[in-house]
Amino acid sequence: MALLFLPGLARVAVCGGTHGNELSGVYVVQEMERQRKEKGECAWPIPVKTVLANPRAVKECRRYIDQDMNRCFNIATLSSPITDSSPYEVRRAQELNKLLGPKGSTDAIDLICDLHNTTANMGLTLIHYTTSDWVTLHICKYLQTKITKVPVRVLVLDIPISDAYSLESVSKHGFSIEVGPQPHGVVRADIYSIMKEAVDLTIDWIHKFNSGMVFEGGDVEAFEFIKSVDYPRDPETRSLTAAIHPQLQDRDFCLLKRGDPLFLSFSGETVKYEEEEPLHPYFINESAYYEKEIAFHLGKKMTLTIPSVQVQKD
Amino acid sequence: MALLFLPGLARVAVCGGTHGNELSGVYVVQEMERQRKEKGECAWPIPVKTVLANPRAVKECRRYIDQDMNRCFNIATLSSPITDSSPYEVRRAQELNKLLGPKGSTDAIDLICDLHNTTANMGLTLIHYTTSDWVTLHICKYLQTKITKVPVRVLVLDIPISDAYSLESVSKHGFSIEVGPQPHGVVRADIYSIMKEAVDLTIDWIHKFNSGMVFEGGDVEAFEFIKSVDYPRDPETRSLTAAIHPQLQDRDFCLLKRGDPLFLSFSGETVKYEEEEPLHPYFINESAYYEKEIAFHLGKKMTLTIPSVQVQKD
Repeated sequence: MALLFLPGLARVAVCGGTHGNELSGVYVVQEMERQRKEKGECAWPIPVKTVLANPRAVKECRRYIDQDMNRCFNIATLSSPITDSSPYEVRRAQELNKLLGPKGSTDAIDLICDLHNTTANMGLTLIHYTTSDWVTLHICKYLQTKITKVPVRVLVLDIPISDAYSLESVSKHGFSIEVGPQPHGVVRADIYSIMKEAVDLTIDWIHKFNSGMVFEGGDVEAFEFIKSVDYPRDPETRSLTAAIHPQLQDRDFCLLKRGDPLFLSFSGETVKYEEEEPLHPYFINESAYYEKEIAFHLGKKMTLTIPSVQVQKD
Repeated sequence: MALLFLPGLARVAVCGGTHGNELSGVYVVQEMERQRKEKGECAWPIPVKTVLANPRAVKECRRYIDQDMNRCFNIATLSSPITDSSPYEVRRAQELNKLLGPKGSTDAIDLICDLHNTTANMGLTLIHYTTSDWVTLHICKYLQTKITKVPVRVLVLDIPISDAYSLESVSKHGFSIEVGPQPHGVVRADIYSIMKEAVDLTIDWIHKFNSGMVFEGGDVEAFEFIKSVDYPRDPETRSLTAAIHPQLQDRDFCLLKRGDPLFLSFSGETVKYEEEEPLHPYFINESAYYEKEIAFHLGKKMTLTIPSVQVQKD
């Protein structure tokens, strides 16, 4: 396979607290800032910017103040005029776009790694936007190889970058890290340490890549988003009438086949999966998705073939 | 052992949503209200009042709007004058006291069962205020005997009833049910079904008691609150510098001995339990207790001896 030469990654950011109650990311950023205070810039082999993305929401330990900030980084919202009544998260997203972007420009930072938690049993999941960002996919492959304590999955959202709405879409490369299960408003040492390991390995990969190491290509297993499924609800009140079925709960990324149980109603009836095509559910019973009317997403497994890469010489 | 004759329990309430994001209780109350619509008052063998205690917090899926309502049922707060600036939860607590109390009076409802969830791995925990409320302790004993899927523990807070601050203290008897682990803002079918079973068995006991059945006395194992322990924090920012140690996480009600690990700092150091007296930790890593500066409570095991009881004849 041909060797692809790519630009080095000189400017890198690790962001946490984009959702203020997802605490592993908040404490990973806090710990990195403590390390910087202690050791200066040689805390890591490359310079790393650390960002607490939504400080007001972190302070109040809420997902957001006015609206979900991780849906504000599409071009339309980033270029909307700011008025006195603009939501806090729209203002802050535009600030972050100035700091780390501007999105889509040559000035944009090379890579953002944005840290998230989920109440779903998703192990370590790496989410990004394209099937052809070789740098990001090589980092995913590296984490899949190096991390053995929990399953490491790659999720691809096939959205044009101008519509891509999450923080890491501001950078040239980048991905978000989801680690779970962890209740929002809680930090668990086991979940924190998986996230910290993923961040350390990402920095490690970038350092090796920048230093000239060749990374062999190959296959990366990934999941592609297909659609979302909502809870059964009362048609009038919109209140849930069922919970995720105990046989589906905590089984993110299993293969869902026709007839498998999806929901158990509060009065005891089972709702089954009725579709012909077997698919993989994930973000099962994520607390923040109740208001978005999402019980879980469904995805399809795919294999991405990525080329060998090396940093290009000046 | 002598047989004690006690008044029947004619008026009973099941309350949920005292904390608006503890969803099992919200959905148990909703399901009971659906059953009442379907079957009328014969849905249960005794009349049961159902109450959604903090409807505004439930709607916003938050613990509370202005302040923790389950700390508002002490006599001082219940009798404080209401002004335009009174917190929502103080107003609502006084409303509930009119509906279910008044606390300490002969008019007060006979029993409140108040439904809660915790992010801690506490199985089914029954919490109440005295070591001599035989009705409540008999119900606890009954649940300990009948429920086998999860551990059933009894917690006693030794607080004078006038200072007792939680909703069930408004009734003559009563207890709160804590079921976990469940993230706040999430309903899990397994946790919901444990809570529903506990409520159904409570109603079952009251019906049998009111019908004249003799309940044999005996020993009830319980835990008594001793003190609370906070997380290690940065002295300036008050931010956490450590999480619950992985060897303590999810081990609620284990016996903690000198030298056992308590916390793991974000930079990797272990903090150990240094006290001589072995005690039992519970509410370990409860999300709502971060702001109360509580990492866990410590309790002492005790055995309560309760007399045989029967309803007194008119």
